[in-house]
Amino acid sequence: MREVAVLGVGRTRVDEHWDKSLRELAGDAILSAFHDAGIPGVQGIYAGNMMSGSANHQQHLGAYLADWVGLRLAEGLRVESACSSGAAAFRAALLAVASGELDTAVAVGVEKMTDSPSQEITAELATAADADWEADQGVSFVAINALVMQRYMYEYGWEHKHFAPFSINAHANGAKNPYARFQSPIDERAYLKAPLVASPINVMDASPMGDGAAAVILVPADNLHSNNGVPVVRVAASAAATDAIAVHGRKDPLWLRAAEQSSQKAYRQAGITPHEIDLFELHDAFTIMAALSLEACGFAERGEGPRLALDGEILPGGRIPVATMGGLKARGHPVGATGMYQIVEVVEQLRHRAGPAQIEGARIGMAQNIGGSGSNIITHILRSDS
Amino acid sequence: MREVAVLGVGRTRVDEHWDKSLRELAGDAILSAFHDAGIPGVQGIYAGNMMSGSANHQQHLGAYLADWVGLRLAEGLRVESACSSGAAAFRAALLAVASGELDTAVAVGVEKMTDSPSQEITAELATAADADWEADQGVSFVAINALVMQRYMYEYGWEHKHFAPFSINAHANGAKNPYARFQSPIDERAYLKAPLVASPINVMDASPMGDGAAAVILVPADNLHSNNGVPVVRVAASAAATDAIAVHGRKDPLWLRAAEQSSQKAYRQAGITPHEIDLFELHDAFTIMAALSLEACGFAERGEGPRLALDGEILPGGRIPVATMGGLKARGHPVGATGMYQIVEVVEQLRHRAGPAQIEGARIGMAQNIGGSGSNIITHILRSDS
Repeated sequence: MREVAVLGVGRTRVDEHWDKSLRELAGDAILSAFHDAGIPGVQGIYAGNMMSGSANHQQHLGAYLADWVGLRLAEGLRVESACSSGAAAFRAALLAVASGELDTAVAVGVEKMTDSPSQEITAELATAADADWEADQGVSFVAINALVMQRYMYEYGWEHKHFAPFSINAHANGAKNPYARFQSPIDERAYLKAPLVASPINVMDASPMGDGAAAVILVPADNLHSNNGVPVVRVAASAAATDAIAVHGRKDPLWLRAAEQSSQKAYRQAGITPHEIDLFELHDAFTIMAALSLEACGFAERGEGPRLALDGEILPGGRIPVATMGGLKARGHPVGATGMYQIVEVVEQLRHRAGPAQIEGARIGMAQNIGGSGSNIITHILRSDS
Repeated sequence: MREVAVLGVGRTRVDEHWDKSLRELAGDAILSAFHDAGIPGVQGIYAGNMMSGSANHQQHLGAYLADWVGLRLAEGLRVESACSSGAAAFRAALLAVASGELDTAVAVGVEKMTDSPSQEITAELATAADADWEADQGVSFVAINALVMQRYMYEYGWEHKHFAPFSINAHANGAKNPYARFQSPIDERAYLKAPLVASPINVMDASPMGDGAAAVILVPADNLHSNNGVPVVRVAASAAATDAIAVHGRKDPLWLRAAEQSSQKAYRQAGITPHEIDLFELHDAFTIMAALSLEACGFAERGEGPRLALDGEILPGGRIPVATMGGLKARGHPVGATGMYQIVEVVEQLRHRAGPAQIEGARIGMAQNIGGSGSNIITHILRSDS
């Protein structure tokens, strides 16, 4: 397959976008990516979205968005894998271009959650879990993560306060990102005093919902050169893996096997080891997921994720900076769009266009998007020429 | 890209499957395809489904089904393009294998509609249309098609009774298919006397909802040979195109531009003309759609679709047999599964395993799956060695 590069990116701020419809939100991101790429359109649209059918009474986003951005007759498809729908759309678009089936494609992640009342959103999010054996028993998505976090603290002896650095780092980085939902730093006191959601998860452990869209234009990498000092960003690896959809179906609920599998595949494809990665946009939907991701991807030993954070190694100057533009926690988590925000942020870091959030000398970045409570994990590695 | 062939197929009968859950239904089709192919599993699952989020409170079918059929760690993805979700899943699986990304994949279409009350299903089906400009105005999916049919009859001078042969042919063929929802022939009197749904569409013009799943295993075509007289079936073409999602957004609401575009692309890929096609599994969700499809794909002149049917050319012995196993009308239309039923039926015809429904000497078959009211159309051509 041929090598693929990013020609342009676009995104809206993650926010409550009462003034925009689903198509306007996605359209803004797509048209801004067209503008950034300097092209009028593409041959195919791959839309990552989880809940527009219920939240916006609109499915069929492939045709819907192709129509809206003026690309009738183009190919249009929606891809869904719960919270990893964004990365799944990127991977589908990537495969279409890498295989030679299309010469240009846009991957867009979009979610407009505020059209739905929040109690309904909780039920809609639970459709990412096992309907028969999790959701129908009354366990919400945050509750599943709370059970995992309780067990993790019990097994490895950590206390709730030890997860604070994940949240503090995310909010500090979000404060430097004009597209972030929350742009204020928090301190440890704010973390510890936050209202409880499902013990031990409090509001500062959990990522917020929101409305947002992010898009990336993909083209073959041949003949692309750095332009005005902006380096070409190439896709070095793409890998996906699933695991048992219900947490109780896994032998070890504290180990993200699908993250290990997809990151190991990605490292092999890119020909690198984890310590060559300059930044890692991980899926910190909850602080516990940040810890588990770092362990499964080889950045920390089993049970030692919080240690890495407590040692400051996840900060912008640390060994493996994470959530560099705020992560799910502060940039926000518009579920089906999140994976595309991660990719856009990695691209901007590798192009050295991340502004105050810039990781100095960033050349290799990884984005990992998690669907369900660890059951569908998609890893991408991007690399810049510079 | 490398050539891809079908190694096995599986399906359930389209029915009201009160005794089976969503995963059991899909699992039955997948495991039966594994059995037919003689393999224990695959590297990736591509699930076509439209409404499991609302009808079954379960999204995330990639991980959900990979888990259920014993393929943890495999790649798993759901693909959605309304009523063409089945063909879209097939196309995604095809691209994964053709590109070399995977060596084995299963495409499965599944829909379990009877878990949802029928008035909710009507609202869920309307999410395939434009939420702002069609559904929110109170127009249901059948009503959109009724408006198109009214206009067609007005423009070209046909009467309702002239659409009878589409329905009669479908039911006659469904009677020969043990997997069909309806297995009784109908006559013209039954067609004319059927209760009205939305004028001029009556019950015999409209395809029934239902529960069902159909699956196909795809592998590279190299080294496959006919086995015990069953020829190898190869994928000769795959093409997708979109059009305005709202019917009023099209210059000519009586012309399926996306069908024309995707079928013309498919003919070029396969290197054939329409008259070389031995059977055509078209998307007869409504009799009017059968007529429009035949015209857009080059089997009839504009406005002359019903003539082809009245002349008997769509019958098993005719120039272009359609709905050979019952079509959407009699086999049934479990929306996200329909495109995969079409593919399975074409494969069975080309393998000469279609039993009493067999089209003699069938070597080239086409399947066309339509999402929305003509807004997302995916065409596949399959060819057997014999």
